[in-house]
Amino acid sequence: LSFSYSWVFVWEKGYQETDSVVSSVTTKVKGITVTNTSALGLRVWDVADYVIPPQGENTLFIMTNLIMTLNQTQGYCPELPDKTTLCNSSEDCTAGYIGTHSNGVQTGKCRKYSASVSTCEIYAWCPVENDTHLPRPAFLKDAENFTILVKNNIWYPKFNFTKRNILPSISTTYLKTCIYDPKTDPFCPIFRVRQFSGDGSFVCVYAVQGGVMGVQINWNCDLDKPASHCVPKYSFRRLDNKDSDHTVSPGYNFRFAKYYRDTSGTDSRTLIKAYGIRFDIMVFGKAGKFDIIPTMINVGSGLALFGVATVLCDIVVLYFMKKRYYYREKKYKYVEDYELGVNNTYGTQS
Amino acid sequence: LSFSYSWVFVWEKGYQETDSVVSSVTTKVKGITVTNTSALGLRVWDVADYVIPPQGENTLFIMTNLIMTLNQTQGYCPELPDKTTLCNSSEDCTAGYIGTHSNGVQTGKCRKYSASVSTCEIYAWCPVENDTHLPRPAFLKDAENFTILVKNNIWYPKFNFTKRNILPSISTTYLKTCIYDPKTDPFCPIFRVRQFSGDGSFVCVYAVQGGVMGVQINWNCDLDKPASHCVPKYSFRRLDNKDSDHTVSPGYNFRFAKYYRDTSGTDSRTLIKAYGIRFDIMVFGKAGKFDIIPTMINVGSGLALFGVATVLCDIVVLYFMKKRYYYREKKYKYVEDYELGVNNTYGTQS
Amino acid sequence: LSFSYSWVFVWEKGYQETDSVVSSVTTKVKGITVTNTSALGLRVWDVADYVIPPQGENTLFIMTNLIMTLNQTQGYCPELPDKTTLCNSSEDCTAGYIGTHSNGVQTGKCRKYSASVSTCEIYAWCPVENDTHLPRPAFLKDAENFTILVKNNIWYPKFNFTKRNILPSISTTYLKTCIYDPKTDPFCPIFRVRQFSGDGSFVCVYAVQGGVMGVQINWNCDLDKPASHCVPKYSFRRLDNKDSDHTVSPGYNFRFAKYYRDTSGTDSRTLIKAYGIRFDIMVFGKAGKFDIIPTMINVGSGLALFGVATVLCDIVVLYFMKKRYYYREKKYKYVEDYELGVNNTYGTQS
Repeated sequence: LSFSYSWVFVWEKGYQETDSVVSSVTTKVKGITVTNTSALGLRVWDVADYVIPPQGENTLFIMTNLIMTLNQTQGYCPELPDKTTLCNSSEDCTAGYIGTHSNGVQTGKCRKYSASVSTCEIYAWCPVENDTHLPRPAFLKDAENFTILVKNNIWYPKFNFTKRNILPSISTTYLKTCIYDPKTDPFCPIFRVRQFSGDGSFVCVYAVQGGVMGVQINWNCDLDKPASHCVPKYSFRRLDNKDSDHTVSPGYNFRFAKYYRDTSGTDSRTLIKAYGIRFDIMVFGKAGKFDIIPTMINVGSGLALFGVATVLCDIVVLYFMKKRYYYREKKYKYVEDYELGVNNTYGTQS
Repeated sequence: LSFSYSWVFVWEKGYQETDSVVSSVTTKVKGITVTNTSALGLRVWDVADYVIPPQGENTLFIMTNLIMTLNQTQGYCPELPDKTTLCNSSEDCTAGYIGTHSNGVQTGKCRKYSASVSTCEIYAWCPVENDTHLPRPAFLKDAENFTILVKNNIWYPKFNFTKRNILPSISTTYLKTCIYDPKTDPFCPIFRVRQFSGDGSFVCVYAVQGGVMGVQINWNCDLDKPASHCVPKYSFRRLDNKDSDHTVSPGYNFRFAKYYRDTSGTDSRTLIKAYGIRFDIMVFGKAGKFDIIPTMINVGSGLALFGVATVLCDIVVLYFMKKRYYYREKKYKYVEDYELGVNNTYGTQS
Repeated sequence: LSFSYSWVFVWEKGYQETDSVVSSVTTKVKGITVTNTSALGLRVWDVADYVIPPQGENTLFIMTNLIMTLNQTQGYCPELPDKTTLCNSSEDCTAGYIGTHSNGVQTGKCRKYSASVSTCEIYAWCPVENDTHLPRPAFLKDAENFTILVKNNIWYPKFNFTKRNILPSISTTYLKTCIYDPKTDPFCPIFRVRQFSGDGSFVCVYAVQGGVMGVQINWNCDLDKPASHCVPKYSFRRLDNKDSDHTVSPGYNFRFAKYYRDTSGTDSRTLIKAYGIRFDIMVFGKAGKFDIIPTMINVGSGLALFGVATVLCDIVVLYFMKKRYYYREKKYKYVEDYELGVNNTYGTQS
C-alpha cells in the first residue's frame, strides 16, 4: 500500500500545483489554384478569394467547393421546385407565405420554372440559387496542396510562464521549407491541407461537401523541468459527423454574398454557397509545478492511508485471530470506576 | 462524522478524476423576411443579408434593425449637430480638430446643416450618418421567427471521450421539424429567435436596440455511467446590461460598410449601423471518471477525519470530565528516570 | 508544522470549492484619421474602414498600415521578381508551375517586368501586389489615438455568480471621459491604443509591421466576501515575437479584397494587405467559495500531518535517544504466548 501510494505521489505529481493554459492563435494560409469552367472561364484563386473571413483566428475556413449564383437582383421569379412549391394553378400558392426552406415570399401566382414544371412565384433575390447538384470533383480540389502556418502563444498565468509553438531551437530557414510530420518534423507548425485526411479521402469527401477539422495543440508541461521540455503536441480529429446515416446538413457550408451597384443605383449580388474545411485550432493543457500546499495535502492523505495498515492489523489481531481474547486483554486497559468499583469500558483505545 | 464523510465521498464523487471540456461549435440560421419602406422599396432579406459575418461560429450575429446611409463618398459636409459641433461663424470651428464622436476632420468652416441649424464643416464620408432616430418597431422585427441550428462537438481529452449534441437517438426527420423546448424537446438543437426573450420583449426591446444572448451548453458528465447518460443541458442568459440606468452604448450594434466603385473610379459606400442579437454559444462542463489517485487521497483524508473522533474522545475524557485525573493516570505511563529516580514526563501518548 | 498547515489552510483557502470563469466579450472602437497621399488623395478613415472584421469579439483588429493594390483583374502579367521568377528566355519558365510564394500560375513565357528585369509571365490577379516596401511611418499611424471600449460579462456556473466589468459603482458620465490607468483608473474599461506600447514604440514598431497584443482580464474572486470585492484586473502582454532574429512573418498582417463589377460584367478587386494590431481579449480566473467537501479533505490531510508529529516523536525516542531501550520496554507490551510460554512479538504498537 505504501509503495503504491509513493508511486502515485511521484508518478501523478501529487506534489505539484496546476494551472490551465491561456492561449492566442494566429494562422496564415499560402497557395494558389486555377480553375477553368465554361461559366467562369479561366480563373485564378488566391488567399484573398478562398479564405473567409480573411483573418485567420482560432477558426480558419478554406473554401474547396462552391455554388455561385451570379447577378441576383430583388425581383419576382419562380421558386425552386420541391414538394411544397410545385403548383398547377395560382390556387396552390398562398400570397405572403414563407416556408422554412423558402428563398422568398410567395406572391400567390403560379409560374413556369422550366418547360415541364411550374412553381409558385416568389419575391426574392432572383434567380434563386439551385444547390441540388454539387460540383464533383470539388471546384477547388487543389486546395489539398495549400499550407497553413499556425502560430500559437500560450501562457500559464499562475506560474507566469509563456511559450510559443515556434520553438527557439527552430531556425528560420527550416521554417521556410518544413511540413509537419508526426515522426520526422513533430515541431514544424506548417501543415498541408491534404494531411488532414488520413485515409486519402480529401478529394472525394472533404473537398466536395466540406467538413470541420480539429487541430488540437496539447501543452501539458512539467514546469519543474527546464522550459525546453515544455513543447506542443499536435493531433487531429474530424469534428463533423462522418456517419452517412445522420445527414442533417452534412459537411460544412455557409452562404455569403458580394454586393454590387450599377450606375443606375440598382443593387445586385453574387450569392456564394461556400463548402470547405473549417479548421478549429483547439489549445488545451495543464502545467504543474512543485508547490508546498498540494504536497502537504497529498502527504497528509498518504500518511492517513499508512495508518490504515495499523488499523487493519489491529482489526485482524483483535477480531479474527484465534488468540484474540488474549490480545484484547493486553490491548485495552479496563478502567475501574473508583466510586462504584465496577468495570467500566470508557476503554480508551491505546 | 463518518457517515457524512461517506456521503460526501459518494455524492460528490470523491473517487473520480475530472477533466474540462474542449469544444467546437458551428451554427446555421434559416429564415426570410420582407420589408417595405419608402426609402428602400419592397425588399427581401435572406441569410446572406442579415447574418454578419456570414460564417456562424461560437458567436453568431443576426441583424434585427439598421440605419443605412446610402451613397457615402469622401467629401465635405456639415457635421451632425450636437453640443460641440454647432456654430454661428467659422470662428467656432477649428481646422484639423477631431473629437471623440466626430465623423470626420473639421475644416474650420461653419456651414448650414438645415434651414435653422449650422454646424462645423468636416471632411468625411458624406453625407454623415444620422443615428439619432432608431426605426421603431425594428426594421427586421420578423427575425423573431428565424431558427438557429447549433451543432456542438465536445471532447474530454483525458478520457478520450467525444460526443455531439445531435444525439444518436435523434432521427433525421425529427431534426427537420423540432424546436427546442426545455420540457418537451430538451435535446432538439434548433432554437427560434423569439424563444430567447422569456418575457415576450423581443420586438420591443431586443429587436430595436440589439443585445447579447448567451446560449449555455452544459456537458457535466459522469463517465462511469454509460455514454448515453452524457447529454447536453441548454440554458439561456442575457449578457448585455438590462438596467436602463446604465446606458453607455446599450444593446448591441456595430458599423460596417459595403464598398462600390463607379465607372469613373470613384469609391462610394453604403454605411450600415447594424443592431441585432449576438448569440454567444458558451460550452462548459466537467467530466469525472473513477481513478485510483483521487480515491486514495480522499479515502486518506476521510480516515484522518475518523481519527479526529478518537482524539476528540481522548480530549474530552482527559481534560473535561470530572474523573479526568483517574483516566490520565491510566492513559499515560510515567517513565521513571532510572538514573535520577525522578518522575519524568516524556510520557509518550499511548 | 501545525502552524504552517493552518496558515496554508487559511491563506490558500483550502476550505473553498473553486470554479472556472465563463466569459463573453464585446468591443467598440472610436476614432477617425485622415491621410493625404499622391496615390489616394485626401482620405478619411473611420471605424467601418479600419476595423476588420467589423464586429469586435474576443479578437479585434485595427488596421494601422496597408499595401493597396488597386484595380486588379484576372489576366496575364509578369511575376514579382525574386530568385525563382527571374528569367532570360521562356526556357527558364515552366507552364503550369505554381510555387509556394507565387501570385499565380506560370504560362511558360518570359516577360519584361521593368526596363532592366524580366520575369516569368503568370495568369493571376494583375497587376500583382508588390509588398517589398512597407510605408514608413505607418499609413494610419494616428491609430494610436483611437480608443477601445471592452465590455466583459463573466459567469461562474457553479455558484451562479455573474458580473460585468462595467462595475455598478461606475457612473455613465465617468465612462464617457475616462481612460484606463493602472493607478488612477484601474476599473475604466476604455483603453487608448497608444497605451499598449509601454516603451513608446508604437509608431516605430507596432504600427508599421503590426502585432498581436493580449489584453488579459483576471477575475480571481473570493465569493465568501461581498460581490463588490470581485473586480477585474487588467494586464497587457505582447503575443507576437519581439525577437528580430526570428523573423518568419514578423508582426501581424493578412490580405483581403474588395470586389467590384463594372457595367460590362468584368470583375475587379482592390487587394489590401493589412498590417495592424490584433487585440486578443483573454479572460481567465477562478472563483472560490466555502464548501464542506474541500474543507473536510484538507482538514483530514492536515490532521494526518499532525499525526506525523507523534510518529516522529516516537521514532526519536525509541530509536535515537541514549535511553531508548528503557522507553521501548515501556512502549511495547510483549505478549506471552499462553500455549508455548515463549516471548512472541506480535507486539501491537501502542
